[in-house]
Amino acid sequence: MTGVDRIIENALFEDIHTGDITTLAVVPQSRQIHARLIAKEEMVLAGIEVAARVFAVLDPQTSFTPCFRDGDRVPCGGLLAEMAGDAALLLQGERVALNLLQRMCGVATLTARYVERVAGTRARIVDTRKTTPGLRVLEKYAVRVGGGINHRTGLYDGVLIKENHIAAAGGIAEAIRRARAYIPHTLKIEIETETIAQVEEALVAGAEIIMLDNMDVAAMRTAVELVGERALLEASGGVNLDTVRSIAETGVSIISVGALTHSARAMDISMLLEEY
Amino acid sequence: MTGVDRIIENALFEDIHTGDITTLAVVPQSRQIHARLIAKEEMVLAGIEVAARVFAVLDPQTSFTPCFRDGDRVPCGGLLAEMAGDAALLLQGERVALNLLQRMCGVATLTARYVERVAGTRARIVDTRKTTPGLRVLEKYAVRVGGGINHRTGLYDGVLIKENHIAAAGGIAEAIRRARAYIPHTLKIEIETETIAQVEEALVAGAEIIMLDNMDVAAMRTAVELVGERALLEASGGVNLDTVRSIAETGVSIISVGALTHSARAMDISMLLEEY
Amino acid sequence: MTGVDRIIENALFEDIHTGDITTLAVVPQSRQIHARLIAKEEMVLAGIEVAARVFAVLDPQTSFTPCFRDGDRVPCGGLLAEMAGDAALLLQGERVALNLLQRMCGVATLTARYVERVAGTRARIVDTRKTTPGLRVLEKYAVRVGGGINHRTGLYDGVLIKENHIAAAGGIAEAIRRARAYIPHTLKIEIETETIAQVEEALVAGAEIIMLDNMDVAAMRTAVELVGERALLEASGGVNLDTVRSIAETGVSIISVGALTHSARAMDISMLLEEY
Amino acid sequence: MTGVDRIIENALFEDIHTGDITTLAVVPQSRQIHARLIAKEEMVLAGIEVAARVFAVLDPQTSFTPCFRDGDRVPCGGLLAEMAGDAALLLQGERVALNLLQRMCGVATLTARYVERVAGTRARIVDTRKTTPGLRVLEKYAVRVGGGINHRTGLYDGVLIKENHIAAAGGIAEAIRRARAYIPHTLKIEIETETIAQVEEALVAGAEIIMLDNMDVAAMRTAVELVGERALLEASGGVNLDTVRSIAETGVSIISVGALTHSARAMDISMLLEEY
Amino acid sequence: MTGVDRIIENALFEDIHTGDITTLAVVPQSRQIHARLIAKEEMVLAGIEVAARVFAVLDPQTSFTPCFRDGDRVPCGGLLAEMAGDAALLLQGERVALNLLQRMCGVATLTARYVERVAGTRARIVDTRKTTPGLRVLEKYAVRVGGGINHRTGLYDGVLIKENHIAAAGGIAEAIRRARAYIPHTLKIEIETETIAQVEEALVAGAEIIMLDNMDVAAMRTAVELVGERALLEASGGVNLDTVRSIAETGVSIISVGALTHSARAMDISMLLEEY
Amino acid sequence: MTGVDRIIENALFEDIHTGDITTLAVVPQSRQIHARLIAKEEMVLAGIEVAARVFAVLDPQTSFTPCFRDGDRVPCGGLLAEMAGDAALLLQGERVALNLLQRMCGVATLTARYVERVAGTRARIVDTRKTTPGLRVLEKYAVRVGGGINHRTGLYDGVLIKENHIAAAGGIAEAIRRARAYIPHTLKIEIETETIAQVEEALVAGAEIIMLDNMDVAAMRTAVELVGERALLEASGGVNLDTVRSIAETGVSIISVGALTHSARAMDISMLLEEY
Repeated sequence: MTGVDRIIENALFEDIHTGDITTLAVVPQSRQIHARLIAKEEMVLAGIEVAARVFAVLDPQTSFTPCFRDGDRVPCGGLLAEMAGDAALLLQGERVALNLLQRMCGVATLTARYVERVAGTRARIVDTRKTTPGLRVLEKYAVRVGGGINHRTGLYDGVLIKENHIAAAGGIAEAIRRARAYIPHTLKIEIETETIAQVEEALVAGAEIIMLDNMDVAAMRTAVELVGERALLEASGGVNLDTVRSIAETGVSIISVGALTHSARAMDISMLLEEY
Repeated sequence: MTGVDRIIENALFEDIHTGDITTLAVVPQSRQIHARLIAKEEMVLAGIEVAARVFAVLDPQTSFTPCFRDGDRVPCGGLLAEMAGDAALLLQGERVALNLLQRMCGVATLTARYVERVAGTRARIVDTRKTTPGLRVLEKYAVRVGGGINHRTGLYDGVLIKENHIAAAGGIAEAIRRARAYIPHTLKIEIETETIAQVEEALVAGAEIIMLDNMDVAAMRTAVELVGERALLEASGGVNLDTVRSIAETGVSIISVGALTHSARAMDISMLLEEY
Repeated sequence: MTGVDRIIENALFEDIHTGDITTLAVVPQSRQIHARLIAKEEMVLAGIEVAARVFAVLDPQTSFTPCFRDGDRVPCGGLLAEMAGDAALLLQGERVALNLLQRMCGVATLTARYVERVAGTRARIVDTRKTTPGLRVLEKYAVRVGGGINHRTGLYDGVLIKENHIAAAGGIAEAIRRARAYIPHTLKIEIETETIAQVEEALVAGAEIIMLDNMDVAAMRTAVELVGERALLEASGGVNLDTVRSIAETGVSIISVGALTHSARAMDISMLLEEY
Repeated sequence: MTGVDRIIENALFEDIHTGDITTLAVVPQSRQIHARLIAKEEMVLAGIEVAARVFAVLDPQTSFTPCFRDGDRVPCGGLLAEMAGDAALLLQGERVALNLLQRMCGVATLTARYVERVAGTRARIVDTRKTTPGLRVLEKYAVRVGGGINHRTGLYDGVLIKENHIAAAGGIAEAIRRARAYIPHTLKIEIETETIAQVEEALVAGAEIIMLDNMDVAAMRTAVELVGERALLEASGGVNLDTVRSIAETGVSIISVGALTHSARAMDISMLLEEY
Repeated sequence: MTGVDRIIENALFEDIHTGDITTLAVVPQSRQIHARLIAKEEMVLAGIEVAARVFAVLDPQTSFTPCFRDGDRVPCGGLLAEMAGDAALLLQGERVALNLLQRMCGVATLTARYVERVAGTRARIVDTRKTTPGLRVLEKYAVRVGGGINHRTGLYDGVLIKENHIAAAGGIAEAIRRARAYIPHTLKIEIETETIAQVEEALVAGAEIIMLDNMDVAAMRTAVELVGERALLEASGGVNLDTVRSIAETGVSIISVGALTHSARAMDISMLLEEY
Repeated sequence: MTGVDRIIENALFEDIHTGDITTLAVVPQSRQIHARLIAKEEMVLAGIEVAARVFAVLDPQTSFTPCFRDGDRVPCGGLLAEMAGDAALLLQGERVALNLLQRMCGVATLTARYVERVAGTRARIVDTRKTTPGLRVLEKYAVRVGGGINHRTGLYDGVLIKENHIAAAGGIAEAIRRARAYIPHTLKIEIETETIAQVEEALVAGAEIIMLDNMDVAAMRTAVELVGERALLEASGGVNLDTVRSIAETGVSIISVGALTHSARAMDISMLLEEY
């Protein structure tokens, strides 16, 4: 019920549509075949159940045996899964399964690299809403698999008061007051700040998470000292694999990284088919 | 009717769902605002009408004035479009519009780099089915905007006989014969080959497009000489910005590049909102 | 994009389907008519824009002029809105518009009664997930209009650790630890307790909201004293219009009431049509 | 094919959406659990197969054993069904199953009360189109389970000529003539009347069902004598549990009651989960 | 809300899908053009508003001026409508508009021929459920335009007790009794008979419509005499343009004809496009 | 994933909608029954798996045993398939299964007649886009079963440059040049011609398929001589069972026939149900 089947069916329909004419023309019906998914580079696995589901949607009879689990670090050459089933259906599912799996492994692997960089600090790596339209649920899952945690899923399940909201409300305190009166009591209020003065204002107004937007490391350190445990501090902007460690060392709790989802490269994975 | 509105509505629903609670809580109704889309790096623009459509779907009253057209090369800092409309709706559409536009510009810009590399040769750059599930129609469009051409859209509108199809049919000649008997007369038959012997066999059997799969440059050159104008030759595998020129210089007609869509980096684009 | 149009289109299709045969048979095409929506009892108005939208979906030319706004207290006999448009389309939209509007006004009016009862205390009235399947977004909106606030929208945007979750995790502390490690940092953790000992355990474990499930008023008062400002206390179970005041006077912050949505009676509203 | 699965999937998606984060965080995978559905008050059961289907949609492996059948009168404390299955999935389906079941039992129980009140008369209790948008098929089913019969399902499968239709046609006779010429021969024509004079006019014009709209009991009795067996008489308006008996005793055949669906209170039903 | 737009959008998406590549490649954007719809044979027009809607869905700016109305008899060569609009969009809508319009005119024209044949008798021509899957609402509309009336729309809005139903119930009387107890009071009960004895049995049991299934003309005449005005008689089976008159002359009220929808030939209609 | 299930579900929902009230009222639950599909005239079978799928969608427990395979020529009286299953579900699926199967057999049978007529020539019979909206995938399949081949599926998977495209581009050569630059290299370019001069122009411009639109036989013969093997020639317009042989004897490769799908008569097939 989480929408994954809809993503898969949509992707299969996008690719197959009125029929895989090559296979219909060339491959005899009911031909059985073996297949293997192979990692062609080292990666953190994410999405193996999604790949399995692609083939199950096409044919519940397909056998799919994963050899690793999501979150496992797989070496180059690693056998990810073994399959057996109808040749035509394995050929039809191959590209969709790989397109989803390679992307999810890419996100998990990149997230894991960020998480490693901040090891030993209190900082946690979180994602953003800069995800692929239609695939957010899968990409946010892959971030968790890679060791990150999720920021809000969308505009509906978290409050993030940005510069324009503040301007529209007429100030930080008023914006927070309005949010408090409106939103579920189960949500924390987050607000974006660009200066230490704003951090202070947000703190006084009762913000529970304060985003430090594009601040330099010195300013972040000042904010950390100022705020202590009274709110969560989230660093945002200008975060990459080179800068993330020094940002983490400022003592912020949360570092959000758009690149986890908008710039992850697809991992190289192959599907080999073999006649019996 | 090409499905773009469905992609946009799906993406907006993914992000907004039951409501943008921050904006609902904080921003007064009917507040008018200006916004500008700015390129933060040099790029080939693709998808400006898609971005416009995001805001039109949210609110047909929004004014959206593009300053460049798809296919234009935009300098860093270039103003892509100006908007005016309801503040809440511009805030709600911002992320979806950027997520789509940044990705499409990324594909077009990368495609254009490949196209430039092969300038002066006969080779044309084409895409593959290694696209983002659900977004193929947009990514294939962006490839065209970048100067590439499209390979088949999916399994249904083109024939590509691969190794496993050949094995299932019992040989290249038989596979091509079956395809010819089955498929619309409007389609060319393409077949994958790995050796010069297979190229010859495919040619004799009447293949109209012969894919040279992971061949080295010397083998490709041999294939070009062998085949002449009797079939289109398509190079595939191991193509990157470093290798594409030498591949093109072998004389192949078509070079297919999975990276155009599976590894394009999102271009950096910002939306700035300003009070009147 | 919040799904309201889908609810309306679904409801209209449920009612009209292949056509309103009475109107098709009997009413001449293009006949213009006036109509008025009248409150037949005192109520808090909620959903007037939804009613307007029903007619707009059927015919964008329909004129719909609200005379009150959501949240207004309307006296018996009050004129809610005036309409003019095509007779056939007004007749077709009437029942769907009323079915939605009467239900939403019912929820808002009942919520307002609860809110009045706790006036002067710190307690806020919140809803639950005991909503009408398919209409949650409208019913939660009506709760806000009536002066309540919303609990989580669904299982996806809030954490509520119940008895069975605690048992599965092996204890309160472990359950909270697991939640903290998994969920977005933007969410507070709520846990259900049935005894003061559990309240204490939850507090130590870092729960940010503690539900007092079916506790008596004395126990709630003890919990309030124990917890102070260190967590939000939410009373749940056995809440009705007779008991809510004494519960509020214990000092809890939040009182959740399933009846707001599962037992609200439809308000009596009529649509009168008049020939010109 | 009757749309029930769509209602269930829609309701589950509304509640679970991107995932039940509490359960995902806290409950170990593949944990098996028992559950029981218990009636917390006396009721007429309706919808037990719908509840079963909710869990089957989430997981076809779930075992669900009903202990009563739809239409049975269940005592307070009665065990409605026993279940066993994956803990996470039972927890995820609980609220949706209860929201549907409690509502359907409410409608059936209220209907049964009306049916009892008119026992021994010829009158049959029927529903109206005042149903919950999106749930009409379930509510109309529950009315049948409670011993009522259904009026038309929507505007498309029955003719009900109301005051405004009559005005538009220029009179009762002309309205009925137009309907006769247009509608399937399989449908009876029903017309709304407010006076005995209109009843007579309708009868002469060939109406097969005559609705007595908001008439008092004396007028109804006059209508019954006037019409005899020449048409069905349907009483409508001002019907409640106090008035329904005296209306039935006038001799009308049909009494339509909006309250069956717009004012039925949810029955109190609990789901108890138990570790093995 | 009657599903016509869904049929049109589905048909357009079936034909255009990812784009009309010929037009995209060849036709300049924003080129304006004129077009005319011409009847290439005599016909009863049905569906002109559906054709208009096809172009409106593609582009609300298209001008579409019908020259005849549904139900008009159009001579060979008659100009059905004039259009003006964007060339690419007119080209894209042409085939879908014609496919729908030609079929609907075919049904209306064939229906009109049957209706003419029975002129002067009491018999009315009705359709069946032998319609094109997905297009029933349009084909039933075309039958009405051609002068026929509709039988039930589907299994849900009419009762037709067939041989197998009777066998399952254990006889005609019991089958009718069960139906009476279950179905809305707004529906007449129809039952299929094959002998005069069954007709009598049905009449006694209270059937309101009696289908004479594949009876010869003599038997039908006997049935008419037997039944008089006590029930509607519907002739079914073996009806064609040669036999329909003699069937009508037996005095039956209703003649149902599957051929109206399953064997109607598409009328010949052309769309001519002209440059300005 | 080819959309057939969607067609079936849509057709079932169209017919059954809120329930088959006759069967619900009359037929006991869980009654088992046998059924047979019988050809009432000679035909080429097409769609037997589609018919099977209708019953499988309603109830996976239904047994369905085909006695012939698609493409078989079945004599009048031939037993197409045997079924056993729940009586109510067989009754509910009957009409939809027949509506689809009769139509598909009609298309295949008519196609086979055309194919026989051209036996011994090189000409192949192909379909057009004049298909039933929503059923194209099934009708194009039936054409293949009948021995024909398919033209493009829609506007998206084939290029056909018509008169208006040529006019818009400013000539045949320019139109072909634009198409070549835009379309996938996997597609052949087809262009419509009306004179021998246009055929020559198209050939020079590199058209791979040349449609001879409404040419007489003499002109077609001239075109064949002129073109030889340099392009495929497709005859179109004025093709019927009387003319197709002489057209084929001109030596054209392809003859496209709209009548295959727009004028195929439904084959007569019955479903007989028998009690055990």
